Amino acid sequence: MITVGIIGAGRIGKVHAESISTKVKNARVKILADPYLSEETKKWAKEMSVEKTTKEYREVIDDPQIDAVLICSSTNTHSPISIEAIQAGKHVFCEKPIDLDIGKIQEVMDALKKNPVKYQVGFNRRFDHNFAAVQAAVKAGKVGDVHVVKITSRDPEPPSMDYVKISGGIFLDMAIHDFDMARFLAGCNATEVYAQGSVLVDPGFSEAEDVDTAVITLKMENGAIVVIDNSRKAVYGYDQRAEVFGSEGMVASANDSASTAVISNAQGVTGEKPLFFFLERYMDAYATEIKCFIDAIENNTDTPLGIEDGLEPVLMGLAAKKSLKEHRPVKISEILEK
Amino acid sequence: MITVGIIGAGRIGKVHAESISTKVKNARVKILADPYLSEETKKWAKEMSVEKTTKEYREVIDDPQIDAVLICSSTNTHSPISIEAIQAGKHVFCEKPIDLDIGKIQEVMDALKKNPVKYQVGFNRRFDHNFAAVQAAVKAGKVGDVHVVKITSRDPEPPSMDYVKISGGIFLDMAIHDFDMARFLAGCNATEVYAQGSVLVDPGFSEAEDVDTAVITLKMENGAIVVIDNSRKAVYGYDQRAEVFGSEGMVASANDSASTAVISNAQGVTGEKPLFFFLERYMDAYATEIKCFIDAIENNTDTPLGIEDGLEPVLMGLAAKKSLKEHRPVKISEILEK
Amino acid sequence: MITVGIIGAGRIGKVHAESISTKVKNARVKILADPYLSEETKKWAKEMSVEKTTKEYREVIDDPQIDAVLICSSTNTHSPISIEAIQAGKHVFCEKPIDLDIGKIQEVMDALKKNPVKYQVGFNRRFDHNFAAVQAAVKAGKVGDVHVVKITSRDPEPPSMDYVKISGGIFLDMAIHDFDMARFLAGCNATEVYAQGSVLVDPGFSEAEDVDTAVITLKMENGAIVVIDNSRKAVYGYDQRAEVFGSEGMVASANDSASTAVISNAQGVTGEKPLFFFLERYMDAYATEIKCFIDAIENNTDTPLGIEDGLEPVLMGLAAKKSLKEHRPVKISEILEK
Amino acid sequence: MITVGIIGAGRIGKVHAESISTKVKNARVKILADPYLSEETKKWAKEMSVEKTTKEYREVIDDPQIDAVLICSSTNTHSPISIEAIQAGKHVFCEKPIDLDIGKIQEVMDALKKNPVKYQVGFNRRFDHNFAAVQAAVKAGKVGDVHVVKITSRDPEPPSMDYVKISGGIFLDMAIHDFDMARFLAGCNATEVYAQGSVLVDPGFSEAEDVDTAVITLKMENGAIVVIDNSRKAVYGYDQRAEVFGSEGMVASANDSASTAVISNAQGVTGEKPLFFFLERYMDAYATEIKCFIDAIENNTDTPLGIEDGLEPVLMGLAAKKSLKEHRPVKISEILEK
Repeated sequence: MITVGIIGAGRIGKVHAESISTKVKNARVKILADPYLSEETKKWAKEMSVEKTTKEYREVIDDPQIDAVLICSSTNTHSPISIEAIQAGKHVFCEKPIDLDIGKIQEVMDALKKNPVKYQVGFNRRFDHNFAAVQAAVKAGKVGDVHVVKITSRDPEPPSMDYVKISGGIFLDMAIHDFDMARFLAGCNATEVYAQGSVLVDPGFSEAEDVDTAVITLKMENGAIVVIDNSRKAVYGYDQRAEVFGSEGMVASANDSASTAVISNAQGVTGEKPLFFFLERYMDAYATEIKCFIDAIENNTDTPLGIEDGLEPVLMGLAAKKSLKEHRPVKISEILEK
Repeated sequence: MITVGIIGAGRIGKVHAESISTKVKNARVKILADPYLSEETKKWAKEMSVEKTTKEYREVIDDPQIDAVLICSSTNTHSPISIEAIQAGKHVFCEKPIDLDIGKIQEVMDALKKNPVKYQVGFNRRFDHNFAAVQAAVKAGKVGDVHVVKITSRDPEPPSMDYVKISGGIFLDMAIHDFDMARFLAGCNATEVYAQGSVLVDPGFSEAEDVDTAVITLKMENGAIVVIDNSRKAVYGYDQRAEVFGSEGMVASANDSASTAVISNAQGVTGEKPLFFFLERYMDAYATEIKCFIDAIENNTDTPLGIEDGLEPVLMGLAAKKSLKEHRPVKISEILEK
Repeated sequence: MITVGIIGAGRIGKVHAESISTKVKNARVKILADPYLSEETKKWAKEMSVEKTTKEYREVIDDPQIDAVLICSSTNTHSPISIEAIQAGKHVFCEKPIDLDIGKIQEVMDALKKNPVKYQVGFNRRFDHNFAAVQAAVKAGKVGDVHVVKITSRDPEPPSMDYVKISGGIFLDMAIHDFDMARFLAGCNATEVYAQGSVLVDPGFSEAEDVDTAVITLKMENGAIVVIDNSRKAVYGYDQRAEVFGSEGMVASANDSASTAVISNAQGVTGEKPLFFFLERYMDAYATEIKCFIDAIENNTDTPLGIEDGLEPVLMGLAAKKSLKEHRPVKISEILEK
Repeated sequence: MITVGIIGAGRIGKVHAESISTKVKNARVKILADPYLSEETKKWAKEMSVEKTTKEYREVIDDPQIDAVLICSSTNTHSPISIEAIQAGKHVFCEKPIDLDIGKIQEVMDALKKNPVKYQVGFNRRFDHNFAAVQAAVKAGKVGDVHVVKITSRDPEPPSMDYVKISGGIFLDMAIHDFDMARFLAGCNATEVYAQGSVLVDPGFSEAEDVDTAVITLKMENGAIVVIDNSRKAVYGYDQRAEVFGSEGMVASANDSASTAVISNAQGVTGEKPLFFFLERYMDAYATEIKCFIDAIENNTDTPLGIEDGLEPVLMGLAAKKSLKEHRPVKISEILEK
């Protein structure tokens, strides 16, 4: 039984607490820490069999019973708390992104070299049944060598403009998941990024020096070309699909919906919309990623997504940002050289 | 080059004339005969390269150049004209049903025994790309032994009540195609029929001593069970599907629609309705059945649908009618014994 | 918080215990009773936070803390334990069928009249997301008046012949779920049943005086016709679909599969098989039915499936059995008159 | 009745001759000209009711009875023959591309200014039922403002290397159709092109200084971003799809296949592959484009695809070629300035 402490009781921290309480049999949450801990959250934590709640995250780090820390706090705290937890000998699950500053991610890498605990980054989509099935088919050679990967990722509605301003921009906030998916499906790293973007959803994105619609082309180490299309607003719901085309065929996934019911009437043949957003689409994926993390600790195996898997998508996101700004393809090596 | 005469210039006679003119390279229509021949039809026939039009069908039978006769006139004339044409040594393509009276079909059989010309019955659906693919899969053993066949056949709108009254009823007018399909897909004859029916679309069907909604269960010689569901009115269009379930799997077909375009919006994910009715759905099938008939003449092979294929569905239809009336399963042998 | 006792620790009893432990927030399992209680089950029960295990089901009935009893024991005990529990003032959730003897079901009805506790029968498929969506569309008037209902229900593999012999036959063991679905989707009771059956999967079914392939036609009170097709063996997995056709359109559901991934290669375009069997397909439905039962107790409302909903499918099953034996349509009233 | 001459009796010239013979009622082919006219072609032309065949294309231009000329000869002859035909007062249908040299297309434009006959360019895909339905939905406002267009265009097998060498490269030979589709679906011109490419199918493409796999990003005048992915070899057949995403929804088309039959067995749920190649997929589209051309002449209306529609895709193709070579986004204006 692995004893877990969760730092951050926002939406995603709660998702993980509930997963562990109801679906992960070999783990329990001992402490849930959040600086803005409400009475409601305290009550909710009790229902989830969380032993203790606190406003002080150091209580998690300092508790000798805690085996593993889940870092679900705000992005700017991910890397420093990662380092503290690693230095305290705790295994770490860290929400994406580790940091938007490459140097800070490298500091976490350095800490891990000294204290080689288990470290997993929260790219949850790899654990989605559809994307996992696509990748499994690719890995099993069902499509041969990978030639083209297409990833569609559209949110049902944009976040608040307050959030947009501090989000790091569409490439680091939203496409970062797709950059991870690109590596997952192509089976290698990107070497170059070209980003094209427009403000078509809300002029507010222009004011935030961001775009709301983007198409990103990646050249991968194995010659494959990946194309990602992003939008901040798809009126029909969360659109999350992938297609891998190769020398021996193609594998593609569609969205999930609430049911398979289809109505045929005088207007047409109508099925349900995709599930609304990430909490609906990825609830099971969140549970699976935590199960994999706990199992890696229990069995002393590698986590499915290590620190390098946290670094690469940030490099790709920074390259995309630079590409849009400088209006040219940008090599990953340019970002690393900085 | 096979020279053809067409008797009957109604909708289906014209379909065949146009098919031969534009799609059947080894045949030409010399004469089109119809007692109610309009000026418009005469003009149309010329455009279709038909050499001659006449009100007198005997001119077709008597013309020594005519190799083959297509009988597309009203149902009550199918068997007598069949016999005349056979006796004149013409090959015959006869629209379904040959007759609603078993004795008259047997007279045609007798005529054929004396003059073994090519004879084909117009069950066009066997030549539809979807049903043909289903049957090909069954024949190739893809589903193993056939256990259950399901046939859905729904019209987009009911015919006029004047037509309903003389139609022979839903089982002989509409389900007769499905009875043929049952034999085609199960690969053998039916032994017993049970029909359940309701008047749910239009009370006029009650007055015509008919039903507008029916479910028919067939027991086949090989033990397979076939179920057919019919409706005179599907608001979403012509619904024509089949499913064959067997020891090694299932093969099923869906409807055709005008395009594969699908719209996703706030209301759902909507594709096109099925093609409206038989002229839209089966236009290619009508051409293919005539091509097969012409080829059978040219190559002196069996037609794909012989006189027995014309007889069996009528037996099944009469059994279904009797079943509904007597409220019990009826054996095909009971109909033959009469 | 509703306190529950579960009688029967077989597969389905455990499913319910796990559901309550992990997914039903307003209930807890106090006692799990099973005459063949193993050490393994005891250990498992502890993990599921079950307070106590026992071999004596009377301890559940006699415990004054127990609010509700889940009867998951063998079929022949359903009605007597139901009556004991009702008389003890416990709310009852009873797995299907309540009994195969109509008289015994009526005894439970009598007990309920004297002690009107909450009573729910375990027809879990009503809570499946697909069937629930189909019924919701029908109830919302999306297809108008119901004309034809088609239900396909095929198991991936037959049960053992030992089980088949005591199962009550395909109509009472397997089709009983479909009889409930017919009432759920058509919105009324059946008046007449016609069953056609064959032994095509395994000759053992003949020896057990049963069939393994069946097509059942139901006439409903509102004139709608329902057709059910059953097979004991679909090599491609558990096939559970429904289609409701009416005056304004059609609604149909498809099977669930493990993912939406589709592979296109030189052989064709291939998606995943349906989920293997009922535990895979209906796991969420089992949780939802228990949630609904607990909520009905907590809110003092009707359960979604009362004692009549337990009676009618048994009547339909007995009628189907009689229909196959006597080779004729059988009215439900004939079964009641007996 | 419009009298047509066809110059070029290769595959596409024959397709048009057959369309006119069998499907276009208001036109006839008087002359078919080809410098390599074979006896076989002469015989075939007779079957197609072509009055005359010749090796000398000038006989078409000089015949005063000819109303319209279809230019289906080799690419390098498209622009000079266009000019000759225009100067002779003939209406012109010209296969794509008009020329790979912008200056020569402008010469045709100049000729048209002096002799404003009807001129149509052969971008047949606009007449495909699927793409036409997608565009109709966009034009009807069903997806609101266009934000992203995705076009997939993959051939089932690469052409011969001899052809590749003279083809003008993937962007001018293959993607040119997709450039037209981009304009058709986005409803405006492109302003900038970025092309990424790889040689993954056959190293021979490298020798021909070409690529076999490409992803092209277009910025359109209205801010929409179009992404095209091309491959010279899809083992599952001709893959031709489009998706338009906008402010109010998405419309997408799928491939056509030979039937809707789907087989479910122990291996999965398998439907048919897409139709093999362009002759299978676009046969009806070829007939429709010619019908539209003939109707535009008869009714004296604009052709659906004028000379500008022939120019723009060539500009886009040249920009893509330059983009790949110079490894940067290229503006259309750069190509025009040359």
